[in-house]
Amino acid sequence: MENLRIPGPTPCPREVFQAMTRQMINHRGPEFGQILNGVTAKLKQLFQTEGDVFLLTASGTGGLEAAIVNTLSPGDKVLSVSIGVFGERFASIAEQFGAEVIPLGFEWGKAADADAVRRALQAEPKVKAVLVTHNETSTGVTNDLASISSVVKEFDKLLLVDAISSLGSINLPVDDWHCDVTVTGSQKGWMIPPGLAMVSVSQEAWLAHSKAKMPRFYWDFAQAKSYLERGQTPWTPAVSTVFALSVALEMMLSEGLPNIIARHTRVGKATREGIKSLGLSLFTEESHASNTVTAINSPDGLEVRKMLRILREEHQVVLAGGQQRLDGKIFRIGHLGWVTEDDIEVVISALKEVLPRAGHSNEGFSY
Amino acid sequence: MENLRIPGPTPCPREVFQAMTRQMINHRGPEFGQILNGVTAKLKQLFQTEGDVFLLTASGTGGLEAAIVNTLSPGDKVLSVSIGVFGERFASIAEQFGAEVIPLGFEWGKAADADAVRRALQAEPKVKAVLVTHNETSTGVTNDLASISSVVKEFDKLLLVDAISSLGSINLPVDDWHCDVTVTGSQKGWMIPPGLAMVSVSQEAWLAHSKAKMPRFYWDFAQAKSYLERGQTPWTPAVSTVFALSVALEMMLSEGLPNIIARHTRVGKATREGIKSLGLSLFTEESHASNTVTAINSPDGLEVRKMLRILREEHQVVLAGGQQRLDGKIFRIGHLGWVTEDDIEVVISALKEVLPRAGHSNEGFSY
Repeated sequence: MENLRIPGPTPCPREVFQAMTRQMINHRGPEFGQILNGVTAKLKQLFQTEGDVFLLTASGTGGLEAAIVNTLSPGDKVLSVSIGVFGERFASIAEQFGAEVIPLGFEWGKAADADAVRRALQAEPKVKAVLVTHNETSTGVTNDLASISSVVKEFDKLLLVDAISSLGSINLPVDDWHCDVTVTGSQKGWMIPPGLAMVSVSQEAWLAHSKAKMPRFYWDFAQAKSYLERGQTPWTPAVSTVFALSVALEMMLSEGLPNIIARHTRVGKATREGIKSLGLSLFTEESHASNTVTAINSPDGLEVRKMLRILREEHQVVLAGGQQRLDGKIFRIGHLGWVTEDDIEVVISALKEVLPRAGHSNEGFSY
Repeated sequence: MENLRIPGPTPCPREVFQAMTRQMINHRGPEFGQILNGVTAKLKQLFQTEGDVFLLTASGTGGLEAAIVNTLSPGDKVLSVSIGVFGERFASIAEQFGAEVIPLGFEWGKAADADAVRRALQAEPKVKAVLVTHNETSTGVTNDLASISSVVKEFDKLLLVDAISSLGSINLPVDDWHCDVTVTGSQKGWMIPPGLAMVSVSQEAWLAHSKAKMPRFYWDFAQAKSYLERGQTPWTPAVSTVFALSVALEMMLSEGLPNIIARHTRVGKATREGIKSLGLSLFTEESHASNTVTAINSPDGLEVRKMLRILREEHQVVLAGGQQRLDGKIFRIGHLGWVTEDDIEVVISALKEVLPRAGHSNEGFSY
């Protein structure tokens, strides 16, 4: 079996695949209603929220679109705090739907600075919402969301959070940190295949929803809420993926959220140490290095594509390259969901064998 | 095992579940690219189109939203040919996104009349697109899409087709019938779980796309096309459901589309004859009765909910009630995808036992 170490889709445990072999049932019948209600209650625990949580049949990007169109109107000013590809994507969605986006970008590889957010909000009092990526998958950086949130809430703005690759793996107490809409995706820390986005919605988000004029139908949270009261989703849900989620959530709650977070902390640290032991350097400032994905600088001489190919073909280790302007400049190791230190050891050993063959001379460095 | 006879999700064969147990792979790697390319080529055969075909990670309703936002601008006039719940849904989506919807409704249980479509288009020369449901799941009616299409194309209008519960089961030659966007859903005739919408896009639809101003991001066909050229989808796809689709499409092509259509014709007929043999009447005029879903009038005295419950609890036969204003007035049997006459025989036998217990006296009728 492959050692799939990209930042999603992530490998799924046997129990999850077992659940996916279950025959279809009526998505408007009592049995599915029970499963959906159970899944929703468990998600609330892991989101650490008493707000609403909905399942959307979509990729994470669909969840981001839902966050925008449910809370904003064309012409609304939004502050986009961006530190990479996914921060830019969030802003693009808002722009497409007619928001006036005020970009607040930071150097890729660094985290956002809460003081800069404060200055931006002081300069633009009419901002309605702030878009933030909790964990930027393209650069391997985790933002200090608690600090950013406390600034956003000083100014009483709506906080829309892309937590696709953090929630369920890295601590994110949705209510304590006053996240108004929080979006995650099934194929990340949740240990199941892609196909579901999960979103939380705060009271403030509902207030914004009641005034929001962006067009919406498929993503409408009001429809989701009204159907969930009957144990249903408005449109036919990804039934098998819901079965899988139900099992994965039981596994997660039985491990316990603090233990899951601690495991990701250990695995993240093991990855960074392993990388440094190979004479490679992190793309990311270490103080904000993500515990779900590690971005590594490609040293002079290393042919990243060749390295990824040899790793895949000869070691069954699958890593990710860099995206967009980082293509060829970095590579990335995903370590979220169903992962332990042992999986990382395999990756580091494989890299040790392959790096010299892909042009990393590593002179003067002793393995 | 349940005999799940609702109009979707439909039961899936063993081979499909086998495919769903496959471990995740990199959705941006060469192996997934091969699978996606293969699935796309096979879908084109079954859509009978040489146009583009895309997979969207969404329910069918998401596919309908995609059809609208990719081809229209706010203020565009659209003629909505509606014969039931799903026709109204298609119109609601267009309305939400700012189209000016001209409703052309027909009595529920009847098919749309092509001459009425002609008169409506004569009366409203500025109509940009016509929305049509090929097979109306809520009433068990199949529209004469060939005739409607030929009228729509007399006037050179864009034809957007909800074929969610017909394509792959009932004949629908997308190119011959000049469908510009055609939408279907994985959990219908395709024998796999819900989670994917499949859409075809004609040259005329691309022309409309280039001028369409409705906001779109997640659904954008241009993104889908550009990524498909690299064997990818723009956003993480429902990988397991794509594995399942790949296997189901092989099964379908090995049965052969004409044979699949003939099987649905036989099964549809067997359902209608079975129903009449029980002294029940069809909700639908028989000339346009659907071969994928049959709607049955609830006779005086029959308690539909009680009947559905006894069928489910004692016979493991799951049927569907009526939707919206048809709630309590009809019930429905789904017979699409993985279905044979034998499955219908089981349903009819179960109904025979349960009907009298649920208040259907059936006096003067000899079983």
